[in-house]
Amino acid sequence: MPDNAIRDAASAFPLFAATAPRERGSALVAVADALDAAGDEVIALAQQETGLAEARLRGELNRTTQQLRLFAEVVIEGAYLDARIDEPDAEYAVGPRPDVRRVNVPVGPVLNYAASNFPLAFSIAGGDTAAALAGGNPVIVKAHEGHPRLSEATGRIVQDALRKAGMPDGTFGVLFGRDEGVAALKDERIRGACFTGSTSVGRMLADIAAARPVPIPFYGELGSVNPVFVSPTALKNDPEGLAKGFVASVTGSCGQLCTKPGFLLVPNAEPLRETLTTAKDIAAHRMLTAGTTAGYRDRRDTVLAAPGTEVLVEGSVEVDEEGLGWATPTLAVLSLNSVEAAMNTVLDESFGPLSVIVEYGDDPGILPSVAERLFPGNLTATLHLGPDEDPIAWSVLVDVLSRTSGRVLFGGWPTGVSVTAAMQHGGPYPATTRDATAVGTAAIGRFLRGVCYQNAPQSFLPPALRDDNPWGVPQRRSPAGLSSGWGALTGRY
Amino acid sequence: MPDNAIRDAASAFPLFAATAPRERGSALVAVADALDAAGDEVIALAQQETGLAEARLRGELNRTTQQLRLFAEVVIEGAYLDARIDEPDAEYAVGPRPDVRRVNVPVGPVLNYAASNFPLAFSIAGGDTAAALAGGNPVIVKAHEGHPRLSEATGRIVQDALRKAGMPDGTFGVLFGRDEGVAALKDERIRGACFTGSTSVGRMLADIAAARPVPIPFYGELGSVNPVFVSPTALKNDPEGLAKGFVASVTGSCGQLCTKPGFLLVPNAEPLRETLTTAKDIAAHRMLTAGTTAGYRDRRDTVLAAPGTEVLVEGSVEVDEEGLGWATPTLAVLSLNSVEAAMNTVLDESFGPLSVIVEYGDDPGILPSVAERLFPGNLTATLHLGPDEDPIAWSVLVDVLSRTSGRVLFGGWPTGVSVTAAMQHGGPYPATTRDATAVGTAAIGRFLRGVCYQNAPQSFLPPALRDDNPWGVPQRRSPAGLSSGWGALTGRY
Repeated sequence: MPDNAIRDAASAFPLFAATAPRERGSALVAVADALDAAGDEVIALAQQETGLAEARLRGELNRTTQQLRLFAEVVIEGAYLDARIDEPDAEYAVGPRPDVRRVNVPVGPVLNYAASNFPLAFSIAGGDTAAALAGGNPVIVKAHEGHPRLSEATGRIVQDALRKAGMPDGTFGVLFGRDEGVAALKDERIRGACFTGSTSVGRMLADIAAARPVPIPFYGELGSVNPVFVSPTALKNDPEGLAKGFVASVTGSCGQLCTKPGFLLVPNAEPLRETLTTAKDIAAHRMLTAGTTAGYRDRRDTVLAAPGTEVLVEGSVEVDEEGLGWATPTLAVLSLNSVEAAMNTVLDESFGPLSVIVEYGDDPGILPSVAERLFPGNLTATLHLGPDEDPIAWSVLVDVLSRTSGRVLFGGWPTGVSVTAAMQHGGPYPATTRDATAVGTAAIGRFLRGVCYQNAPQSFLPPALRDDNPWGVPQRRSPAGLSSGWGALTGRY
Repeated sequence: MPDNAIRDAASAFPLFAATAPRERGSALVAVADALDAAGDEVIALAQQETGLAEARLRGELNRTTQQLRLFAEVVIEGAYLDARIDEPDAEYAVGPRPDVRRVNVPVGPVLNYAASNFPLAFSIAGGDTAAALAGGNPVIVKAHEGHPRLSEATGRIVQDALRKAGMPDGTFGVLFGRDEGVAALKDERIRGACFTGSTSVGRMLADIAAARPVPIPFYGELGSVNPVFVSPTALKNDPEGLAKGFVASVTGSCGQLCTKPGFLLVPNAEPLRETLTTAKDIAAHRMLTAGTTAGYRDRRDTVLAAPGTEVLVEGSVEVDEEGLGWATPTLAVLSLNSVEAAMNTVLDESFGPLSVIVEYGDDPGILPSVAERLFPGNLTATLHLGPDEDPIAWSVLVDVLSRTSGRVLFGGWPTGVSVTAAMQHGGPYPATTRDATAVGTAAIGRFLRGVCYQNAPQSFLPPALRDDNPWGVPQRRSPAGLSSGWGALTGRY
């Protein structure tokens, strides 16, 4: 069965890669329309299998289908092709040059490991699938064990919609089972892979991808603790607003979000205590899977056992008679010294509604080195500043955060990732196995490679590189004879 | 010593990354000027240590220095930053969005393993160094054992020029020794690496990079046999021109080029024989190193021992009293059947003046499957067609070549790689360990990562993302309220 899916994807590849932008874009929109039409069925299955709230899932479905439409527009606009045309130039400063034309093309069949925590937006028809299909790559999704019936249903919807839109058989497939997922990654016909999940599983798969006789790019989005840094002024300014926003961000979706703030660094926790303790009143929320529950329980035990931990909101995690896990929020306070002393255990991601308030004391000048040492690889880092704070004084920290995370927020909270042209959902390891974005239109770049044509007759060129530019895509031309003060050079947009 | 270089590179990183485009561009031009000024000294050392001809080395020096000037212009133009600005939009179809701005930033200190065969253009101050420095990454070059004195001299020139241009200490360093090179790759302060050389060494290093506690991107340019396909009409049209061009491309620089055509596929070799045998008259050329000589001798023995091999020009490879290797060209003819029968041994790269003429018979319709099966990963593939040949009939082969190689040539020969905006010097494994270009301005992309800023005050934004755009770089803006037929969307250039 997986073998058939891979065989079909390999057969579909040249045909799907050759589809015109409007054909492929329309097919993505057709998938979106079909998912919207099946909304009630899809939402009901997702609720049953994940325990996530209906409102959250309705929002996620909208995100999922609009994301497909967004990528349809990316395909048609064609900037992602990065089409470049060098006109021949016998006088070119680097040496005489022929006619050379370069374009981005799909890498080939992509294996996408679905996530548990976004059963729509990071699963069968989610962002990775949309980005890979948009680039012209057939996609095989390895379904997540946490929502098999939903995976089966959405897989059928996607496959039917693509077939009706005229895409070749094999453009899209779903496979089930962990062993099957690993076997597929080793198959030579798979040319790229992506993954969203735990650091341990992600690293195991990344190592397999790298060790293949023919290694392939593996884009894993693994663990992140998303530190939030609060300046003394910001703390003074609005302690209640801070505490409320923090609790909402930590506990939403039961803390099962890759951008959940795991550490809140404040001069001292005192002004926040009263509001933070209201987290005690939050009702228990079902956890995604038995594995999530067990993993979260372990992490929570570890954090609470760290020397110096003050338990502010104890919370709980329990398994009911049906085997479902339920959690209420846990908030702990530690001094910076205690965190540093226990950094090998405390600093890992806790996937659930737990966060640690770290008291850093009176001197925010220590924060840049703290950020560099304790938080070297994250999806996000957030900075809460007061009004009119000195940019020079804080720019050192901002500079460190831009080197250690993919997204730097000023105010607000990192949960709730926007799907846009400028979004970066990536970051240094272990946030990702290779630092590229998994969200937003730039995510398409993970599944492309460059190819160039030298002295090709127009009739042999791909449409994006032809002089008559039938697809109307942006082309960067380097005319002959262009020169500059330094005498080399490239064309300009 | 290597440890000091790495420590200095790590210290230099934030400072060098923050240099303005005009400062960094001027520093690259200063390096170019200093190398040009030292041209005679540099060329003399290169001749002594590599045995390459003076004219070749003079051309290579020009390429090296113009390449640095080219990257200076890339830095100043700023398109490589891919600056994107999403204006906040409460009505955005995918969901309300904040102000998000994304830019490419350097990955950090880069370790560059120099090549043996381009002692200037792919060594200390070569293309990889230029691309990494242009992106704002400090660079440490692991010098190649084949030209240590040249490496020392050019390393000094580069370091002095960067220092005089005001770049921070540690921006550039050189280290010597294989063990030191491996140790550096394992150092956590190194954040990216690139390599040009053999498949065995490149794969060993790629595996080390992938197995680090924190894996890093490793861009290896390894083995390629660069097949050339000749149509029956092209063979009939100009057999003498074909044979002459082929011999020149195979024997130039003693065949020690990564784009040397290793296989020439023709209907039959008969029309070429007379001209090909003139290769007997080519004088012996010194080989680069003892390792090159030994490796080439092994490969030559293996190819000549393949069942069915007809030796057209026997050639030789010998070691003189000083231990220097000398080679004359070897040309062999095999039927397609013989190549397929011996494909596990014959199809590897032979780094030296050897090439195999493969007779494929009367039906060019078999070439697409031959290309896919025998030549799955190459830097280049070349197609010689007659005038007015049917694009439809040959497009299947062109399509396969675009999937199995980085550059597809129509006529001409793959040696002599142009350094331009549209060049692709990459290709599926084993051509490269990850398919990205090592030549041309797109090579800068290997050493960049994206970072985005959410709701950042203007004063905290990097200059490339500010509304006043002080560097004058291209910015892609997604205005609020933009909508389209499909309701999502992105900005346009």
